[in-house]
Amino acid sequence: MRVLGVDPGLTRCGVGVVEGVAGRPLTMRGVGVVRTPADAELGHRLVAIEQGIEQWLDEHRPEVVAVERVFSQHNVSTVMGTAQASAVAMLCASRRGIPVALHTPSEVKAAVTGSGRADKAQVGAMVTRLLRLAAPPKPADAADALALAICHIWRAPAQNRLQQAVQQQAALHASKGRTP
Amino acid sequence: MRVLGVDPGLTRCGVGVVEGVAGRPLTMRGVGVVRTPADAELGHRLVAIEQGIEQWLDEHRPEVVAVERVFSQHNVSTVMGTAQASAVAMLCASRRGIPVALHTPSEVKAAVTGSGRADKAQVGAMVTRLLRLAAPPKPADAADALALAICHIWRAPAQNRLQQAVQQQAALHASKGRTP
Repeated sequence: MRVLGVDPGLTRCGVGVVEGVAGRPLTMRGVGVVRTPADAELGHRLVAIEQGIEQWLDEHRPEVVAVERVFSQHNVSTVMGTAQASAVAMLCASRRGIPVALHTPSEVKAAVTGSGRADKAQVGAMVTRLLRLAAPPKPADAADALALAICHIWRAPAQNRLQQAVQQQAALHASKGRTP
Repeated sequence: MRVLGVDPGLTRCGVGVVEGVAGRPLTMRGVGVVRTPADAELGHRLVAIEQGIEQWLDEHRPEVVAVERVFSQHNVSTVMGTAQASAVAMLCASRRGIPVALHTPSEVKAAVTGSGRADKAQVGAMVTRLLRLAAPPKPADAADALALAICHIWRAPAQNRLQQAVQQQAALHASKGRTP
């Protein structure tokens, strides 16, 4: 499974591509940051983010795009920009028919460090170890994007089993409905 | 001046086109709502909003798109969706090189009713009167989109004068810099 992780932001939008399956060593395919100037108009910044994300989708052809789920209660000053950047990332993926998965920051931290309250340094250290990198990816937004992709690869099997169970249940009810 | 007003929202995104200049009677060119199903995936909803906004831009070719400025402190439960829908509207406009203007809800209310704390009914009544409509546009999101467009037409002259003053000031400094 090849996953593009996106840590959304207007000034720095972290992007990272990880390939692998749960239970096997993972491979980093790319990491970077889409930047937009803080003094540019908001609409132009969103266009620049769209162009950046499109380039990453073109180059890496991910099967899934994992985006950080944004909560309105955190970081009130930056949350609107984060929500808007995440909307652009989701739009780019969905327009191509690529499934979008959302994971909360604590889900991501718990997946890679074992603790939902881990700090940036701990997440960076574990990303470095899990992907066998020479040094932690900089800036932190890039490391967070890789952590999102890892989180998705590891959580996907459980999510898929849940979806399958729900679908089987629905199919069972449907077949019962047809033969009363 | 032809302005597309957008009252952003995931479930109902109000859109309205108004043509005219400050100090003259205004004309409504179109009004409607772009809807997306609440049970659809977020990425697919954003794609549907993009397609809806694109249709309005294609059909009405506005010179400016006026979007409601979203604040994180209001309506915490829906603010993320509002921010994401507004991002899509701004992206569509900026991608075409159409200027985007943001106005706060109280600026819009003050422009059309004289009070920044006016209620929905008052805004709807004034939009109906100012555009000489037979009845208030429904739903309220559609009326709000028209109010945004009216607000922009009426505020634009003052904003333009301000921009011109800033540009003249900058040009003055630049010419002083060249001939020290």
